[in-house]
Amino acid sequence: MANRIITLTSDFGVNDHYVGTMKGVMLSVNPQAQIVDICNGVQSYDILDGALTISQAYKYFPAETVHVVVIDPGVGTHRRPILVTGDKHIFLAPDNGVLSFVYEREERLSVRHITSEYYFLQPVSNTFHGRDIFAVVAGWLSKGVEVSKFGDEITDFLRFAAPKPKQVDPKTIKGVVLKVDKFGNLVTNFSERDVPQLFATPTPPFKIAVGKATVTKLARVYGEGAAGEVFAILGSMGYVEISTNRGAAAQAVLAGKGAEVTLTLESAAGATQG
Amino acid sequence: MANRIITLTSDFGVNDHYVGTMKGVMLSVNPQAQIVDICNGVQSYDILDGALTISQAYKYFPAETVHVVVIDPGVGTHRRPILVTGDKHIFLAPDNGVLSFVYEREERLSVRHITSEYYFLQPVSNTFHGRDIFAVVAGWLSKGVEVSKFGDEITDFLRFAAPKPKQVDPKTIKGVVLKVDKFGNLVTNFSERDVPQLFATPTPPFKIAVGKATVTKLARVYGEGAAGEVFAILGSMGYVEISTNRGAAAQAVLAGKGAEVTLTLESAAGATQG
Amino acid sequence: MANRIITLTSDFGVNDHYVGTMKGVMLSVNPQAQIVDICNGVQSYDILDGALTISQAYKYFPAETVHVVVIDPGVGTHRRPILVTGDKHIFLAPDNGVLSFVYEREERLSVRHITSEYYFLQPVSNTFHGRDIFAVVAGWLSKGVEVSKFGDEITDFLRFAAPKPKQVDPKTIKGVVLKVDKFGNLVTNFSERDVPQLFATPTPPFKIAVGKATVTKLARVYGEGAAGEVFAILGSMGYVEISTNRGAAAQAVLAGKGAEVTLTLESAAGATQG
Repeated sequence: MANRIITLTSDFGVNDHYVGTMKGVMLSVNPQAQIVDICNGVQSYDILDGALTISQAYKYFPAETVHVVVIDPGVGTHRRPILVTGDKHIFLAPDNGVLSFVYEREERLSVRHITSEYYFLQPVSNTFHGRDIFAVVAGWLSKGVEVSKFGDEITDFLRFAAPKPKQVDPKTIKGVVLKVDKFGNLVTNFSERDVPQLFATPTPPFKIAVGKATVTKLARVYGEGAAGEVFAILGSMGYVEISTNRGAAAQAVLAGKGAEVTLTLESAAGATQG
Repeated sequence: MANRIITLTSDFGVNDHYVGTMKGVMLSVNPQAQIVDICNGVQSYDILDGALTISQAYKYFPAETVHVVVIDPGVGTHRRPILVTGDKHIFLAPDNGVLSFVYEREERLSVRHITSEYYFLQPVSNTFHGRDIFAVVAGWLSKGVEVSKFGDEITDFLRFAAPKPKQVDPKTIKGVVLKVDKFGNLVTNFSERDVPQLFATPTPPFKIAVGKATVTKLARVYGEGAAGEVFAILGSMGYVEISTNRGAAAQAVLAGKGAEVTLTLESAAGATQG
Repeated sequence: MANRIITLTSDFGVNDHYVGTMKGVMLSVNPQAQIVDICNGVQSYDILDGALTISQAYKYFPAETVHVVVIDPGVGTHRRPILVTGDKHIFLAPDNGVLSFVYEREERLSVRHITSEYYFLQPVSNTFHGRDIFAVVAGWLSKGVEVSKFGDEITDFLRFAAPKPKQVDPKTIKGVVLKVDKFGNLVTNFSERDVPQLFATPTPPFKIAVGKATVTKLARVYGEGAAGEVFAILGSMGYVEISTNRGAAAQAVLAGKGAEVTLTLESAAGATQG
């Protein structure tokens, strides 16, 4: 019998009962369910942060995993609960764009509006669909129930584009800090594809202005940095990060999520069109 | 063979080894144990917060689940470790009232003083019964050991009443903020049953004073609120919450746990006797 | 077939995708893997904090458990990934000393340099070996792959000594605060063996100076303390802790990790040589 793994990504945090309650619901449907937290510390209501989190993690799970993604400020409104099947994985989420970066990465995509109230916890509250809809549907999916049982396909689902760097003149690209991680690394939206010249050998002269800092060093590993030195590095998420060795770059440069990042290359900059 | 699910609710947090150590003990007794965190972020020493947390979550788990609840400021004193069987679930906790709201919800109730040292980790410390008593007993229970093996029934277990709203005059009910959740929602102790008139159709004119705010709007869903607007809403815990759309009401109204909440209804207020 | 439990100890926190991604990698290798968090809230880059955490928890897990310990500021540099087998447990970690306190507790010890790239996730990043090396190797180990498959034994692995108390004169021993736990307990490096006289019956007169406090009471249980009183207690980690009943001693005495702790005994102090 199928026993698909269930993952959980949410902004419910770790200080309330919300995540535990969802797991109880999943286990009541499927006592054998194998439930794994991806991250419940997504910033409250932050759909972009949730989109980044799930998009970074899901491909590392086995095929057929059911990924539950609940960042849901519109809970109870007309925003739809959706069930998405991609190339290999299954996703449950509110239709608010939180799966946008998953959509970018998948070739095949089927999105369904979850409408089969038979599978809901009754009565469905207006404030906690994580419990009353998503967890219980995840439990049934983990037992192998066919995705077609939960509702019909839709094509007008919501998706937003990831914020892309913009080339503002031949030498200058502007981007943004997508997130600050637990170590204080500033994860920018410059991917390796966006700025291939930066990763040429030898590294060309460059400047990255962010917060109060101007960074001119590209490190290969965090350990290369001298104490207090701020540098750029290609991080594990595939983006340029602004980092410091054994310290928090966010504090060092006084910048955070949403801060502007300006890359200047003496040679003509970037493969990106603004 | 039985393999009861084990849940964990505690104030041990996520920055120390305490929770991991308890899970190791459980798994050493029952390597097949399925262990689920409900919440380890209960406020330190806060029995009321723990009581709320477990009471909100346990019913969503399958019958026979073993719920371990360790908020235990009196560890090592004469307070007793207890094993509680309710209608469908099993609970392990110190006898300090942390299961009071569970007691309110269960019809059948059997409470035992855990005394069978055979099942304890020896030597039992004075400071970590979560590890030395509760985790190991949970491991054995998960394997199907009979509850009667762990000690005799008692009737003088500790329970406290949930703080109930008080009607102070025909139009006014006073209550309290039970907790602030991760989103900054102020969860009051006004349940739907305490103030049925508030939920009449149409909503009657009312005022809720809390912190520096006076709330006059009842929302059905969070998404109804305008930016910065503070409103009341029936939350998923069954209580009136003071909330704001995509923001933290606790910060907006400058109130926190324990703050007084005053509901005024123009029509005669409340079903509650003070 | 073997299905060894996997535990996870790291400084990755609970607000990013890092821990979830590692679990995905483990489950992709072994979909039956039983993965348990010991603690992902180790202080960033803090090898001592990680060493303490794993050393406190691992012995409570069943024999053959695979403990993954990723506090890895030197990721991508020449520091080696290692696989350690002790008396009963298996460990994966960077060779930076984070297993030092495990080494102290184990009689038999075999340390291997993990070199078999066959088991790595390709391409191996320079910044996230938790994902690309440790998680995937843990997955294979959990399925019973022989430790010898991953690389050859080494003897020049890195280990540091735990900071030990120093006897500075016949009556005085100086130590240090090893960590502050979630409750605000100051965990010192005075073990029961270091200061046996302190635990004599009756308790001898003593003073412990730490932060702005001078502690003269030894409590047996936290609940003995009067409101606001700061006392010493033998904690569950085996060390003297400076604590206060239902409060945070760290705030009460204004001291934190690394603070000096001075014990003065009127009788000749300590079994420790400086």
